[in-house]
Amino acid sequence: MADTAEPRRKRAGGRSANRTAERTPTFQQLPWRQVRNPFPPFKFISDDQVETIHNAALEVLETIGMNFLAGEARDILRAHGADVTDGNTRVRFDRALIEENLARAPAAYTMHARNPERNLHWGDNAMNFAMVSSPPHVSALDLPRQAGTFDTYCDFLKLAQHLNIVHMLAGYPVEPQDIAPRVRHLDAYQAMVRHCDKVNYAYALGRDRIRDSLAMTSIAHGVSMEELKSRPSLFTVVNANSPLQYDIPMLNGMMEMARYHQPVIVTPFTLAGAMAPVTVAGALVQQHAEAIAGIAFMQMVSPGAPCVYGGFTSNVDMKTGSPAFGTPEHAKATIIGGQLARRVGVPYRASNVNASNAPDVQSTYESQMTIWGCTLGHCNMMMHGLGWIEGGLCASYEKVIIDAEMLQMMSEFLLPLDTSRDELGLDAMADVGPGGHYFGTQHTLDRYETAFYSPILSDWRNFETWQEHGSVDATHRAHQIYKDLIASYEKPPLDPAIDEELDAFVQRRHEEGGVPED
Amino acid sequence: MADTAEPRRKRAGGRSANRTAERTPTFQQLPWRQVRNPFPPFKFISDDQVETIHNAALEVLETIGMNFLAGEARDILRAHGADVTDGNTRVRFDRALIEENLARAPAAYTMHARNPERNLHWGDNAMNFAMVSSPPHVSALDLPRQAGTFDTYCDFLKLAQHLNIVHMLAGYPVEPQDIAPRVRHLDAYQAMVRHCDKVNYAYALGRDRIRDSLAMTSIAHGVSMEELKSRPSLFTVVNANSPLQYDIPMLNGMMEMARYHQPVIVTPFTLAGAMAPVTVAGALVQQHAEAIAGIAFMQMVSPGAPCVYGGFTSNVDMKTGSPAFGTPEHAKATIIGGQLARRVGVPYRASNVNASNAPDVQSTYESQMTIWGCTLGHCNMMMHGLGWIEGGLCASYEKVIIDAEMLQMMSEFLLPLDTSRDELGLDAMADVGPGGHYFGTQHTLDRYETAFYSPILSDWRNFETWQEHGSVDATHRAHQIYKDLIASYEKPPLDPAIDEELDAFVQRRHEEGGVPED
Repeated sequence: MADTAEPRRKRAGGRSANRTAERTPTFQQLPWRQVRNPFPPFKFISDDQVETIHNAALEVLETIGMNFLAGEARDILRAHGADVTDGNTRVRFDRALIEENLARAPAAYTMHARNPERNLHWGDNAMNFAMVSSPPHVSALDLPRQAGTFDTYCDFLKLAQHLNIVHMLAGYPVEPQDIAPRVRHLDAYQAMVRHCDKVNYAYALGRDRIRDSLAMTSIAHGVSMEELKSRPSLFTVVNANSPLQYDIPMLNGMMEMARYHQPVIVTPFTLAGAMAPVTVAGALVQQHAEAIAGIAFMQMVSPGAPCVYGGFTSNVDMKTGSPAFGTPEHAKATIIGGQLARRVGVPYRASNVNASNAPDVQSTYESQMTIWGCTLGHCNMMMHGLGWIEGGLCASYEKVIIDAEMLQMMSEFLLPLDTSRDELGLDAMADVGPGGHYFGTQHTLDRYETAFYSPILSDWRNFETWQEHGSVDATHRAHQIYKDLIASYEKPPLDPAIDEELDAFVQRRHEEGGVPED
Repeated sequence: MADTAEPRRKRAGGRSANRTAERTPTFQQLPWRQVRNPFPPFKFISDDQVETIHNAALEVLETIGMNFLAGEARDILRAHGADVTDGNTRVRFDRALIEENLARAPAAYTMHARNPERNLHWGDNAMNFAMVSSPPHVSALDLPRQAGTFDTYCDFLKLAQHLNIVHMLAGYPVEPQDIAPRVRHLDAYQAMVRHCDKVNYAYALGRDRIRDSLAMTSIAHGVSMEELKSRPSLFTVVNANSPLQYDIPMLNGMMEMARYHQPVIVTPFTLAGAMAPVTVAGALVQQHAEAIAGIAFMQMVSPGAPCVYGGFTSNVDMKTGSPAFGTPEHAKATIIGGQLARRVGVPYRASNVNASNAPDVQSTYESQMTIWGCTLGHCNMMMHGLGWIEGGLCASYEKVIIDAEMLQMMSEFLLPLDTSRDELGLDAMADVGPGGHYFGTQHTLDRYETAFYSPILSDWRNFETWQEHGSVDATHRAHQIYKDLIASYEKPPLDPAIDEELDAFVQRRHEEGGVPED
């Protein structure tokens, strides 16, 4: 017999109802909360295979080594016992040296936001979602793909603040290209603080930008620079220049962050077949070697410096050389990355990414592959959680809403099942009996308002009603929703004294010319 | 630092290249294969919670019981020790009676197709994907939603044959409404055999249709009716008329199938909040009670009759009463359904479903929630694997292609990771060294053609190239692909003598008027 759903649907809204008017007052999202993953991490590979990869990575660091391009970094490495030769950027590591330094990295910590209610737990089974970061371009259904601007950048900050499922900013949701690079970090950080009270981020593009960002963090959080050292409040991502290399701006940023005990997400950029071996296993060996070398280096700079193990291994399309994301190989690498991070004993970062050129079906299934990879792999921080399309070259307004729905669904999925006697519904079954229905029973009436996840984007009206209202597909609905959210956005409170002090800092640094061009 | 993908992409195809011409000759899909899930099933609930639900279901059957509307079924139940009262359709079961009969159901078996190369394993860690079944309507981007016809039905059979990821037909991919119900099963089955050599299906709409279908199966497989009894070759789904009821046509179909030892997928239709309690735990208790009563009944009819435990628990939208699919609750129920099926010890069926009115982003993320639920829950048969939209009220040509891509990706994801020495790529890393790239290394050249999953739908060309070729989104690409597939479809071989004999049978039954109207 067909198990087709019977159309037991009632009309929601009459023929003349205005869709926007229907939705805005009823925009109901999940409350702000720390998402926890109560399930054991998925073991894509055996514990023995984890050891195989870990040992292979140690062998790489021992025999091939890595290039550390900054002399100051090599001095620190040599002082701690790494194999460094004068005039040579190559550094090799004894495996015991790596292991003893990895042991100094903290397994979990509190990440502070300027609003303490937005503080986050990083590590253990906590899962945190970040807005997309760093695309040069931006697009919407009515905005042809174009260079990011300060205005579009601020739009994404507003969405980040409005959506409770966004835990943090992890860079510029789109690059504000109309601001000069010398001062961009100043204006962008100030806008982050003004528009959003959540955890935020600075780019590790050299020492000066990090120093400015730390100073602004001190102002925004109302704590001294010295106090910052015991209070992780600003984070950055450092990508290895894979294969097997860290460049000078990255190393300088890492050292500065480590000295202030601010978290660095050490993320090798290991696309299998391009910057890493063509096998997933090989790319993971290289990812692991680069990540643990970076984390160990941070500990040499400053023992106990908070780090995160970043996994970004995906593959390229061997036909075109294009990066691919959300592939089966990517999902595997994401899960195994978690196994490797837990072997090291630090929090794990992965990503919600795709290679589609539009906020379409492809962007969605590729994203889902990575969202499930992140979840099964127990990532603690999902970078690019909302809004990424086109391999990261474009931020999509509609994709922010699509991702918000998908991440809300995942966070609901992670709530354990209550099998207490009352939840089993035996009395309700006895009341209703064979052939009846449950719409009006007390058991239903007591629970129906909160029984199930209530979507922000999905449209469950029947076909005829949906058609009467214009047959609007989910991407076009997402378009209207993001516009409504920006229109109804409210700035979070900010102490005027802090706002003034931050503004004075930004003005002064502008007058000083910002940072020198690299 | 931004971990945005660098645009290392080369052009695929020139500006004037014809998209269709590019694609058709290069339509490369995965080979036909039995998908296996090598990972342990995901435990969404603890083993203790499984026992709680199992025991609660036994309590329901003992104290509330179920309605069996067919007198013949009640006679069989009474003869085997169930609690049946004259003139009352309600049947109650001692828990020992249920358990001892469940123990008779086989845990795994071979399901036969008319082409032995298409035989399937049902049970253990095998995963089988079925085409959508039973929507009354059909749509495509250029075909407004309309009643299914024999022609559109045959289109879906051709897609089922063409796509290697489709393991079986599980009913009519769309209802051929232009054929009279009295003879529809005859023409439809004949078309299945002619267009597709894979495992197929008959609807359990009473005894006569099942008898006709068994006779046609005997002809198509070239075996006698008696031989069929030791050779599962035709299957059906029986939905309980939830809550707690089996109707006469369903029971007659079940009994006929059981007597010929053909598999029945016993699938309660337990939408939480409508036909089942509003809690997921309660809906699962009811699902389990209905499923195990059905499976136990089949064993009373014919010990050892092959059964499948069907899980279909989702929830309704409490605002509109509409069924919802691919919700967080649905994903949980799908995984837990697998835990319950393994408690019983029979193969498990679940579904790839969604409630979207279009083959859009919503249909995709809802589907992904169920595909991952099926995978983590170790379903052995995924019904509605390809083509379902709109809560099952419509079959979408484009969704068939979208699902084919998603299921191919999942089947690749399930291939274990090789961490043998050569795969670890240490020599390649030593050759390439820091700062190099892997495009031209021997390790890459040896593997690049088969290193990664090659998509059928995803477009990984860069934005500019994609735009030059018309900015075609994935749903519109799926449209062109399904048209190409139907155009390039080839009928599978069929022995002319079998074709003739089948035709004669269908003609004769037409002349006899088919089956009486119910």
